[in-house]
This record gives sequence, C-alpha cells and structure tokens, in this order.
Amino acid sequence: MSFKIEAKCKNSKARSGILRTSHGDIRTPAFMPVGTRGSVKAMTPHEVEDLGADVILGNTYHLFLKPGTEIIQNGGGLHKFIGWNKPILTDSGGYQVFSLSKLCKIREDGVEFASHIDGSKFFLGPKESMQIQRELGSDIVMAFDECTPYPCSKSDAAKSLAITTRWERASREQPLDDGQQLFGIVQGSVYQELREQSAKELVEIGFEGYAIGGLSVGEPEEDLFRCVEWTVPFLPEDKPHYLMGVGLPHQIRECVARGIDMFDCVIPTRLARHGTAFVGNGETIPVKAGRFSADFTPVDPGCDCYCCKNFTKAYVRHLLNVGEILGIRLLTIHNLHFYLNLMCDIRKEIENGTFYSNL
Amino acid sequence: MSFKIEAKCKNSKARSGILRTSHGDIRTPAFMPVGTRGSVKAMTPHEVEDLGADVILGNTYHLFLKPGTEIIQNGGGLHKFIGWNKPILTDSGGYQVFSLSKLCKIREDGVEFASHIDGSKFFLGPKESMQIQRELGSDIVMAFDECTPYPCSKSDAAKSLAITTRWERASREQPLDDGQQLFGIVQGSVYQELREQSAKELVEIGFEGYAIGGLSVGEPEEDLFRCVEWTVPFLPEDKPHYLMGVGLPHQIRECVARGIDMFDCVIPTRLARHGTAFVGNGETIPVKAGRFSADFTPVDPGCDCYCCKNFTKAYVRHLLNVGEILGIRLLTIHNLHFYLNLMCDIRKEIENGTFYSNL
Repeated sequence: MSFKIEAKCKNSKARSGILRTSHGDIRTPAFMPVGTRGSVKAMTPHEVEDLGADVILGNTYHLFLKPGTEIIQNGGGLHKFIGWNKPILTDSGGYQVFSLSKLCKIREDGVEFASHIDGSKFFLGPKESMQIQRELGSDIVMAFDECTPYPCSKSDAAKSLAITTRWERASREQPLDDGQQLFGIVQGSVYQELREQSAKELVEIGFEGYAIGGLSVGEPEEDLFRCVEWTVPFLPEDKPHYLMGVGLPHQIRECVARGIDMFDCVIPTRLARHGTAFVGNGETIPVKAGRFSADFTPVDPGCDCYCCKNFTKAYVRHLLNVGEILGIRLLTIHNLHFYLNLMCDIRKEIENGTFYSNL
Repeated sequence: MSFKIEAKCKNSKARSGILRTSHGDIRTPAFMPVGTRGSVKAMTPHEVEDLGADVILGNTYHLFLKPGTEIIQNGGGLHKFIGWNKPILTDSGGYQVFSLSKLCKIREDGVEFASHIDGSKFFLGPKESMQIQRELGSDIVMAFDECTPYPCSKSDAAKSLAITTRWERASREQPLDDGQQLFGIVQGSVYQELREQSAKELVEIGFEGYAIGGLSVGEPEEDLFRCVEWTVPFLPEDKPHYLMGVGLPHQIRECVARGIDMFDCVIPTRLARHGTAFVGNGETIPVKAGRFSADFTPVDPGCDCYCCKNFTKAYVRHLLNVGEILGIRLLTIHNLHFYLNLMCDIRKEIENGTFYSNL
C-alpha cells in the first residue's frame, strides 16, 4: 500500500497519513501549490520546498501547449526540467479543455479543441492525456474526465457523467510507467445520486486514489460541503481522497473533517499577485490598499515567514503600488506559508487529538 | 580618509580600494545594482547581498514621488524601510527630472516639474534634493545637477554647466547628517574644455567623491571614453571616482583602466527582464529566442550562479516565453552575478598585477 493512515480524528472523518510516491512522501492532509506552466508563480522550486510543500501540481493542458511534451521529455521529464525533485501530480487537461479552450467537437474518444493561446487545433482524450502524463513523468496521474459547468441540469450532468466514466475506464486501460499512480475523478455536479453513482463506478474500475472534481466552479459553499459528504462514504477508506481546486482556508479545514486528504488551489498565489494576504485565522487583508501605506507592522504580526520577519506592510504596499515584482514575491511566500502552515497545524491536531471543525 | 587605495595598476590608471561608509565598506572598483523604487527589480535584498553587492543605488526622484520621503523617514530611513543594511547611494533626482518628468520652469534655485506618474507639480533644487537625501539617510548623497541631453551644442552645455556648478555649490552648503558623504558631479557634455572646467570648479568646492555625469545618454562610445580620459586627471587621486549610468561589461573594464572606481547601470537588470543574458566575456544571448527552446545546457556553462547551476536555457526560455516571473528572476540573478563577478575579477587582477584593458 502506498497510502498509510497514521492517525484518525474521533469526532470527524479527518485522518492524517503518508502517501508514498517515486519522488518521496507526501504528508496528508496535504496542500499542493499550483505550478501551472512548470513554475509555482513567482517562486523558485527551492523556495517552495523550503516552505514545506511535499508535492506540487502541474497542468497537462498548459504544459502540452507550451513548451510541449517533447521538450520536457527531452529535458529529462518534468521533475528535471523544472528543477523539482519531490512529487508532482498532473491533472488530465480535461478541466482546462472545457474551461479555457474553444471546444470544437466532443467525440467518443475525446475532445477536439482550439488552443486558448493561438487557436491551433488539438485532440485530447484518455489515451492522449495518459500518454502526455506518462511522458511528463508525473508521480500522480489524473484520469481524463469531463468537468460540468455550474449550474448544470441533472440530465446534462448524467450525460456528462456517462462520458466521464467511459473516459476514466479508458484512462485506466492505458499503460503508465512504473511508480506512476492513477487517480480517478468523481463527477456528477451537485446531485447526490450522480455523485454516488460516479464514486461506485470508479471504485469498480479501481484506482490508486480518488479525487472529487467539478467543485469550486461557482456553486454555493453548502453544495461543496454536501457533495464531499455524499461522496467520501463511497470511496475506499484506505485510499487517498483528493478534492480538486479547493479552496479557502476554512473550506480546507471543513473538508479535512469530511475525509479529504489532498487539496490544490490557485487562491494563495493568485490573491498574492492581486495584493491580498491571508492573516490570522484565514481572513484576508488588501495589503495594496492605501490605508497600509504608513503601517510599519508585518503583514501578519503572528507569522514567521520571510516576508513578515523582514518587511513591513508599508514596504510591501509600496512595492505592490508601484508594480515591483518583489511585492508579488513577498505576498506569494506569505500566502503559501499560510496554507502550508495550516496543513501542518491540521496534521498535528489530528495526531494529538485536538482537530476541530464546524462539522 | 574614508577612501583608501590598496593597489594600483602599472599600465593604466586602474586602482582598487575600499570606500568606508556608515553602513560598511565598499570594495572598489564597485558595481552598484540599481534599486530605483526601493527594490533591485525582481530581487530580495538578501539575494542582492548574497550575489556580492556592497552597495545599491536608490533614485531620489522615484522615492520622493512614491512612497514619499515622509513614509520612508517614518519607517526608519531607506535602509530599514527596504531591509538593506549595507551602503546606499542616492542620486540627486536631477537626471530623472530632466529625462522623465515634464519640465515646467527652470529657476535659479531649482526646477518646477510635473510628475511622470500623474502630472502633479513639484519643485526640486539643491536645497530640496539634499533635504530628501538626508531624510532617506543615504550613505552617499549626490549633488543636484542639470544633465545635458545628447547632442547638445557647446554654448548650451556651457550655460547648463554654469547652472550645475551653482547648484552643486548650493548642495555643498546644505546640512547633511553625520556620516553622509557628498559627491559632486562633473558635467560639460562631450566638450573637453567644459569637462576640465567643471572638474576644477567642483574640486575647488570640495566633495568626498567625484562623479562623471551626463554620459551613456546616446553619445558614441569613443566620446564616453574620451570624456573620462579628459576628466579623471583633474580629479583628486585620493577620492573615489564614480562614472554614472555606465555601462556594458567592456565599458566598465575600459573605464576602470581610465581611473574609475564606481559604476551603476540598469543594463543587467533591464536586459534580464527583456530575456537577454550576459555570457562568456560580456557577449549577450537572447535566451527568450526560439532557438534555445530545446537547449538543455545552462545559460552560461561556465557560470556558477543559482540560475546556471540549477536550470537549463530551455527551461528559462520557456518561462520567459509564457511570461512567468521566475524567468525574469533567474536572468536577473544571472546578469547581476555576471556584473558583480566581473568587478571581483577586476579587483583581483589589479591586486595581483594582471589587470588588462584595450587602453
């Protein structure tokens, strides 16, 4: 077994553990910084590692378009190409094909789409996605799925789920390299029946881990929590559960309480670039705002990240205000530290029996 | 004496030494990375220090406009505000007033100008510039001068020089804080007679160091070298000589041979942001170019900077190509390393008698 649960919470479904991969262990519950195009935005891989990340996420769609799989493969695979020697999870490209590119045609074996960069046409299906992720050399490979938009009628969601299940079965049938783990993705929009059906179908196919997809796409937060609650009971307890694209700090805690082991989200890095910092218990402050122009305290006085130990709000605000890259860098460090530190706290709490949530 | 010459070249005017300041020693010949708005672009102060910079330059004009002197002063001065505890040289703001802002009126006591940011009006003269630089707390303060454009007729240059000398004398008469050193700036465009006159007038006023200004403004390289040759003999040998805004690696070497001790230039950081790297003996390569997309060698195989030790041209090219900040960061590190390493080489060569130039 590559996944080992080490502690369980008595009052919730929260658990802590270790997911073993070819490039090292992932301590769970884990947050995966997003390195869309082969870089966690504004960060060096060494900085990401120093912040305590065990694993980063790469986007198959973006890397497939630029620089292209051939270059990454010739460069020794994604780990070597980007200088990150720890685990990498790659998504399947499905989500970006449906959200970013111009769709041309959905076929039984995949999707014809036009690149959001220059309109050139490509085809991506389970076969292609698995081949790309094999060539990238990801430690955790995601099955190719269709992600439903929100809102989505139940009949549309059911139709989409039928395709998704066939594509995920086809993904499972593709060859992967030794040491690569394949995760299935539960879909079904906000419908309990479909989520349950999807989970059961995937478990029947059999994967090394199970993700919950199609959330954080605009639905109310209560739907997010409910979908997780509906789905987790149908997933094997001894496999890792990954909630894709979620979320805010309190959502992460609530979903850990509902049995989730892995998260990824662009929020900490994206908000940093917009001049917003996470502080305290997960509140945000707009450091870029004029009211901080003469505030000579750290971004978060209780924080011990590089930004907070060395610089003031007034300085970071000035940098953001005049468009200096260093401002973005400092808030990115701060926000990723906040998220990774949150996961560290959550793991410790689960281990020593003090984990809490609003569940 | 705060400036101590430690070695002299036998075949040229090159010399190495130490310039002592309130925030530590500057090894000369020195290159000063430019931190225009309180940040060496894309870099943390710790990274700049780790690259071996002894001193950085701050721009009075930019800092005066944003965040404003009051904020920096309330933040404990420029060193504390930006988190750089080593020496800082600030320019007088004169150059930017004449090159960036919309001039409104030149008066006997300074210049009325409209900010290039929002058009709001300000006044800057020797009195104001010295007060700002005192409030910033710079270790080396530059006298307020008028920088002539290129080309400039001899009569215009002579008229400008007359104003400059009066402004520099007025700068000298302003109070500075203990430990702050004031440097005068030789002007006179490309005219030997005016350069000589300017140098003599400044020496008569008396400064802790002497800069040569008004060069690297578009004149042919031979004019640059000639102006330095014409000026240095009239400067006190026991004071530091600073060539403002210069230049390319070979120009730095040639000007060291002509008796220059200090340089600043935006070229290494600016070219990095444009995707260009210095390699070998000072040649440049456009790393952003498509021909490097599958080049898995370092930016400069002979270089031991963070970028070259950890990443390939193909990766850096990809980052630049898709607009990732990390690409800019890596080339900025590389180019600053190139410049600071060049100065290190030059100092060693002077000390062990192997310094060479085309002089």
